[in-house]
Amino acid sequence: GRVLARDLEATVDVPAYDVSAMDGYAVGARVEKGQRLTVGGMIAAGDRPGLDLPAATAYRIMTGAPVPTSTSAIVPIEQTNGGLEKVEFSSSSSEGQHIRRGGEIVRAGEPLLSAGHLLTPGAQSLLATHGFSEIAVHRQPSVATLSTGNEVVPPDHKPEPGQLRDSHTAFLTSAGRGLGLSFEPLGIARDTPEDLLAFLERGIQHDVLLVSGGVSMGAFDFVEPALEKLGCRTLIDAVAVQPGKPLVVARHSQGWVIGLPGNPASVMVSFWLFVRPLLRALQGLPDGFWQGALRGILGVGLPAGKDRDRFLAAEVETREGHILVRPFLPRGSHDIVAFAHGRALVRIRPGAREAVPGEPCEILPLSDWPLPDTEP
Amino acid sequence: GRVLARDLEATVDVPAYDVSAMDGYAVGARVEKGQRLTVGGMIAAGDRPGLDLPAATAYRIMTGAPVPTSTSAIVPIEQTNGGLEKVEFSSSSSEGQHIRRGGEIVRAGEPLLSAGHLLTPGAQSLLATHGFSEIAVHRQPSVATLSTGNEVVPPDHKPEPGQLRDSHTAFLTSAGRGLGLSFEPLGIARDTPEDLLAFLERGIQHDVLLVSGGVSMGAFDFVEPALEKLGCRTLIDAVAVQPGKPLVVARHSQGWVIGLPGNPASVMVSFWLFVRPLLRALQGLPDGFWQGALRGILGVGLPAGKDRDRFLAAEVETREGHILVRPFLPRGSHDIVAFAHGRALVRIRPGAREAVPGEPCEILPLSDWPLPDTEP
Repeated sequence: GRVLARDLEATVDVPAYDVSAMDGYAVGARVEKGQRLTVGGMIAAGDRPGLDLPAATAYRIMTGAPVPTSTSAIVPIEQTNGGLEKVEFSSSSSEGQHIRRGGEIVRAGEPLLSAGHLLTPGAQSLLATHGFSEIAVHRQPSVATLSTGNEVVPPDHKPEPGQLRDSHTAFLTSAGRGLGLSFEPLGIARDTPEDLLAFLERGIQHDVLLVSGGVSMGAFDFVEPALEKLGCRTLIDAVAVQPGKPLVVARHSQGWVIGLPGNPASVMVSFWLFVRPLLRALQGLPDGFWQGALRGILGVGLPAGKDRDRFLAAEVETREGHILVRPFLPRGSHDIVAFAHGRALVRIRPGAREAVPGEPCEILPLSDWPLPDTEP
Repeated sequence: GRVLARDLEATVDVPAYDVSAMDGYAVGARVEKGQRLTVGGMIAAGDRPGLDLPAATAYRIMTGAPVPTSTSAIVPIEQTNGGLEKVEFSSSSSEGQHIRRGGEIVRAGEPLLSAGHLLTPGAQSLLATHGFSEIAVHRQPSVATLSTGNEVVPPDHKPEPGQLRDSHTAFLTSAGRGLGLSFEPLGIARDTPEDLLAFLERGIQHDVLLVSGGVSMGAFDFVEPALEKLGCRTLIDAVAVQPGKPLVVARHSQGWVIGLPGNPASVMVSFWLFVRPLLRALQGLPDGFWQGALRGILGVGLPAGKDRDRFLAAEVETREGHILVRPFLPRGSHDIVAFAHGRALVRIRPGAREAVPGEPCEILPLSDWPLPDTEP
């Protein structure tokens, strides 16, 4: 899941030399249907290359085994009687058949993987073939989370009247793991300038600090002024989306602070729309707002758009190659249940008309998606 | 990423009681535009619920704070002059506005998450809200990998002439990590019945053993007979796909053994087509052959189909909501480079005609996809 930081070149020829593509017999000249040859021996994968093939002799040969010098062709065992001392061929051969040529896939010194390549399982296979045991990759950003609010208690506490459990930390650390990142939870800050300042000072030691709560218009919202005191420059303090309007993005010399709204739905939507692309960009992957969005087919209706972009969580399933989308209609941004069940976000653009089942919609998958996105 | 094994019920009402949906003022009766009220105090999130609201008084109230008993409505601060002792309203209120009712999202005792639910970040948020610190989940299958072949050396060895580095273990363990699983690599077995038997005996202690190499028609292919000796019943010994035809699926009383072909492309394709669905099913997730496939749009042409299903690796990108697919045309099943670069598999059905750019195609994404699939 890491991203290559430098180009890599092949270290070996693949195949290393001419090898057999089949289990069968190596023959030194074209054979005809019905022809018989003496079997001179057997060559297995792992045998040394360079064996000579005497005329009028066939060698039994395994897939991946080095073909003898002066081999004309490999005849698959299915086209023979499989004899051990004498072999009879049931079809004729053509020059060069079933021989994989040394270096035909890649030669030592040729480009193998480019900087920016995601290290998928397939890429790991290539690294192993070429013997790379240490390579330069993009470093992972260090990310801290901070919940805020006098009413917020940790999940393992029983809330007193007026209190509620912190769900943001659980969401964020789990979403971080989905990106291969271990977020460090700093804890829960009280709604006082002193407590916030102390936590934020620790938080900005990280490349990215995710603060939840405390960025709306409440009297107890001290996050933005505290960030300014710490030398953070606020770039954004609201986004035209619902839920998640009061989002703060601040920059300091060492990294980023994202102030997420206080309610669960807004934290989730803001994370997927804004935080995930930032983190992926820091990981060396191309990403951005709404990149990787796909066209889905509505399984239920979708309400008309309002004055700003609206996002709903949705259940998604594939059906005959299409993505069937069933949005959850939340009862507000406190509807943690509706937002928690979604496997994708559905977008309702401003002013969009109501949509009925069967119509297309725009979705952003929330699993190990999105795929890289290109400009049209 | 784990899967819930039992239904869970809510442990608390959400919201816990009537709370304000906005920062603003709680009023005891309908207010009119221009009306002024005395501000009786301030209620923050975290304050105890049950405060009384005297007539002709407004309370400054924060989002998420408990509304006083006999509250008629919350007037958002943007619709007031924000006064601290006296407040003037710039619009009139309607009964019940901006109040979130206790239990309106979910009540304690009501269903929260069902058995079979994937524990996404959103689900983790719900678990935290309801204070679950220990829950029953499907156990992860234990998976071992075994490479076979006299010519195979570990990736950190320099291959002698005739040898090649083991790339299967790197591929498989990385693909396993993508499913949240830690595969145990057993090592590399020599092509002798004794060595294979010893390794296989260790391997079948695991729920799933993935053996690569040794299942085609070569004279050194001892895997299948060795498995029979160990009491494994072979269910499948070939599949009509290319690459990956010689696939062995065997069952023993404690689990499964999958014999993967010896070449890298076949290992990869067989893993995505057959092993991943098996492992996901063991994890408690719905999956099966070619489930979660999506319709893509070809960015380059696709050759005509042959006599069996053919699979190519492809580069995939989203473009205006569509998935643009560029298959890599391999030079054979030894073309590790073509298969290692793919982010999806493309299917060419038997007998399919040649397809040109712009035509649809069937793909299976190889990232944290697939989505759950339903019968049409």
